[in-house]
Amino acid sequence: MSVRARYSAAVQRMGRSAIRESMKLAEKPGVISFSGGWPHPDTFPVEELRSICGSLLDGRHSSCLQYGSTEGAANLRAEVIAFLKSMGVTASENEVLITTASQQSIDLVARVFLDPGDCVAVEDPSFISALAAFRAHGARFLTVPMDGDGMDVSLLREELLRVREGRPAAGGALGGGAMAAERGAQSAPLPMPKFIYTIPDFQNPTGISLSVSRRRQLLEVAREFDLLVVEDVPYRWLRYSGEEAPLLASLDTERRVISLYSFSKIFAPGLRVGWVAADAGIVDKLVQAKQAADLCTSAFSQAILAAYLRGGALPARLAFSTELYGRKLRLMRETLEACMPALPGLSWTAPQGGVFLWVRLPAGMNAEALLVRSLRKGVAFIPGDGFHANGGSGETLRLCFSFPSEDDIRAGIPLLAGALREAWDELVMAGGTQ
Amino acid sequence: MSVRARYSAAVQRMGRSAIRESMKLAEKPGVISFSGGWPHPDTFPVEELRSICGSLLDGRHSSCLQYGSTEGAANLRAEVIAFLKSMGVTASENEVLITTASQQSIDLVARVFLDPGDCVAVEDPSFISALAAFRAHGARFLTVPMDGDGMDVSLLREELLRVREGRPAAGGALGGGAMAAERGAQSAPLPMPKFIYTIPDFQNPTGISLSVSRRRQLLEVAREFDLLVVEDVPYRWLRYSGEEAPLLASLDTERRVISLYSFSKIFAPGLRVGWVAADAGIVDKLVQAKQAADLCTSAFSQAILAAYLRGGALPARLAFSTELYGRKLRLMRETLEACMPALPGLSWTAPQGGVFLWVRLPAGMNAEALLVRSLRKGVAFIPGDGFHANGGSGETLRLCFSFPSEDDIRAGIPLLAGALREAWDELVMAGGTQ
Repeated sequence: MSVRARYSAAVQRMGRSAIRESMKLAEKPGVISFSGGWPHPDTFPVEELRSICGSLLDGRHSSCLQYGSTEGAANLRAEVIAFLKSMGVTASENEVLITTASQQSIDLVARVFLDPGDCVAVEDPSFISALAAFRAHGARFLTVPMDGDGMDVSLLREELLRVREGRPAAGGALGGGAMAAERGAQSAPLPMPKFIYTIPDFQNPTGISLSVSRRRQLLEVAREFDLLVVEDVPYRWLRYSGEEAPLLASLDTERRVISLYSFSKIFAPGLRVGWVAADAGIVDKLVQAKQAADLCTSAFSQAILAAYLRGGALPARLAFSTELYGRKLRLMRETLEACMPALPGLSWTAPQGGVFLWVRLPAGMNAEALLVRSLRKGVAFIPGDGFHANGGSGETLRLCFSFPSEDDIRAGIPLLAGALREAWDELVMAGGTQ
Repeated sequence: MSVRARYSAAVQRMGRSAIRESMKLAEKPGVISFSGGWPHPDTFPVEELRSICGSLLDGRHSSCLQYGSTEGAANLRAEVIAFLKSMGVTASENEVLITTASQQSIDLVARVFLDPGDCVAVEDPSFISALAAFRAHGARFLTVPMDGDGMDVSLLREELLRVREGRPAAGGALGGGAMAAERGAQSAPLPMPKFIYTIPDFQNPTGISLSVSRRRQLLEVAREFDLLVVEDVPYRWLRYSGEEAPLLASLDTERRVISLYSFSKIFAPGLRVGWVAADAGIVDKLVQAKQAADLCTSAFSQAILAAYLRGGALPARLAFSTELYGRKLRLMRETLEACMPALPGLSWTAPQGGVFLWVRLPAGMNAEALLVRSLRKGVAFIPGDGFHANGGSGETLRLCFSFPSEDDIRAGIPLLAGALREAWDELVMAGGTQ
C-alpha cells in the first residue's frame, strides 16, 4: 500500500538530523570524530554506578523497576531542588519536572507553546535539534546574530520593535528561509515570538557564553515585550576558565524563565534524564504533555541519579571532567593555531567551557564539500548550515573536543587543516575567492 | 506574567490522565489499589538485573552510558527480530525501531500520521493514554463497539461505508462527544480514518481478545478501505487460558500493520523500553519524529534488555508471571462472584489473560461517585468514562488484578461490593433505577 499521502504536516517539515546521521559516519572504524557533542567515557562514574545498581537491586527497592509519577521521583526532585538552591535558584516541588533528557524538555516546551506559524526567537546559529523540535511543531524563527558576548540583545530588541510596529524585516533576521518558503510562509510577517530560546553557557554550536550585562539586558527586553525566555543549560558546569555568570533563572523576578537542565554532560547521556524548572502553572502543562509523550521517565535511571547526587560524588567528578576537557580545549586551540593555513576570514571561537568550537571558513568555501574531503582523510565534523535556523551560507562548521582523545586531536586537526588547504587551493584555481 | 494566552491549541485539548492521577490516590498508605495496570514486583527479574548491571559496568562497556542511535542499539534490535521470528513475524533491521516504551510508540505514530481534525478508528472502550496522545494531535474518533470477541468488525465496516458514502452517522459511533463539541467540530462529518487502533490481546481496559476470525475480517476491511492498522501488543504474553490467536502482523500480506510492543509487562516498566515493527518507510518517518522527541532511548536500559534476552531467561520468567497472574485473575473472578450483589445489568468480563477486568454497572449508576464511596473504604479503581473516546455513560469501571496481592483482592473486592450495594440502595431510594 502507499502511505505517503497519509503522513501528517509535521512529517513534511521533518528531515533527518545532520548530527544523528553524522554520528553514523563517526562510528565507522578509524574515523576521528569531532562530530557529535559526546562526553568522553572516562568521565562516566562507572564505579559509583556499579555500586549504586548493586544497592538498588538488593530486592528491597523494586519501586525503581515500576512505573513512576509523570512529575518524577520525589527523591530525585528533592536532590535537584537542593542542587538548584546551591546555584541561587529557589524552586519548590511543583516547579520541577523530571524529563527523559533535554531533548524531551525542548519538545515538551514546543508542544505546550507552539502552534503552526508561531515564532521563536533563537540565536544564529543555535542547537540543531532544538530547531528541529520547534520546526516539527510548525515554528518559524526570528534569528538573532551573535558576537563574542553571545546573542546581540540590542539587535533582538530592534527586531522585536519591528515586529510590534509591523515594519518589514531587515535582511535575514526575519522570514523563514528555505523551510518557510516551501510552506509559502516567507512573505507572511512574523508574529511576536512565543518565547526566546537561548543557551547562555558555552552555547551549542559556538561555545560562546552570554555576558552578564547581556543576561540582564535580555531579561529587560523580555519584560519590555512581555516574552517568555527558555534557557537551555546542558554545559554550565563544564567551565575551564573565566568567571561564572548568573543563571537567567536566578535574575528572573517575574517567572518568565523556563530552565532546561540535563544530566547528560555531567553524569552520562545513556540514562536519559534531565529536568525543567519553571513556574508551577507551566510545569503543570508540561506534565500533561509528558503524560501523552511517554507517561514517565525511567524510574531506574531516576533512582540511580538520586542515589548518586545524595552520595555527594558529583563535585569531584566535575573537577575531573573540567580538568580533562579544559586540557582538550587548550590542545585543540593550540593545534588549530599551529596547523591551520592563514586564510582570509578563517577564524574560530574562544570558548571558556563546554564541548564545542565553532569555525568560520573563508568566504566562498563550503563546509559540506569540505566534509566530503575531510572524511576521505578520516576526519568527521558537523557542517554548520543546519544550525542556522533560517539557512546558512555554507561557511561554518562545528568541532567537538570533549569526545576525541588527545591523540585524535593531535592527529585529526592537521588532517582537517590539510583538507581545508586543498579546498582553498581548488577554490583559488577556480577563481571563487574575492 | 500571564501565560495562559500563550499556550498552544494542543494544551487546550489536554487534560490530566485519570489513570496517572488515580495512581497518586493508589499510592496513599493503606489504600488497596485496583487502579493502574502495574505488573507485580515479584515478576521483576531482580537477580538477573543485578548480574547484568555488574557485567555491563565492568569498565569495558561504557557505550551503554553514551548516546546511542535513534533507531536503537543494534544488539537489542537483533534480539527483538529473533523474538518476532519466534512469533511468525519476519522483520529486517530497518523495519524495527526501539522506543522509550509503548506510550512513546503511540505518540510517534500520532505525530507521523495525525493532523488536527483527522480521524482514528478505536475500540469503545480503548486505552485512555492512547486516546490522550491521539487527541493531543487533534484527532477525532470513530468508535467501534466491542463484544466478547473484541471489536465488532461488521459495525466498523458499516461505519466506514457510511463515511465513504458521506451518509450521516448513526447514534454515538460517529461525532466527537464533549471534547469535539468544545472545538465546534461535532457536526463536521468524520473523514476516513488515518488508521485503526486496536489492542487485540487482553485489551486495555476490557481484558477481551479479538477472535481469530475477527482478526482476518479486520484485515479484510483494512484492505477494502485501504487503511493502516496499528496493533498495540503489551499483554500478549500474559495468557492464562485459551488458545493463542495470530498477531495481526503475521496475517498481514500488504504491510498495513504497524505493531507496537513493550517490555513493560514482561520485564519491568521502570526501564521504559518498547519497540515498533512496521514497513521500513514508516519506520524511517518514526525515526525522524523520535529524533525531535528524545534523540534516543536509554542506552543503559537497552543494553540491559539485550543482555537479558540473550541470556534466555525470559520464557521461565513468563511462566512464573502467567502462573501468578492467572491465579490472581481466578481469585478476583471467584471473589466477585461470591461478593457482588445480584443487581440488574451488573456484569464483568471474562479475560483469558492480561491484567484487567472490566465491570459494567447497573443502568443509572455512576462509577465516579462509586469511586468516592469506595475510596472511603480504602479501595481504588479507575472509572470507565475516560476510556470511551466519545464520552461514556458513567456506568463502567476498570479493575487491575496483576498489582494487588491475593490478600488485597480477598479484602478489597468485598469492600468494593459493599460500596456498590450502598450506592445501589441510595439510587433505589432516590427512584433512579428503571
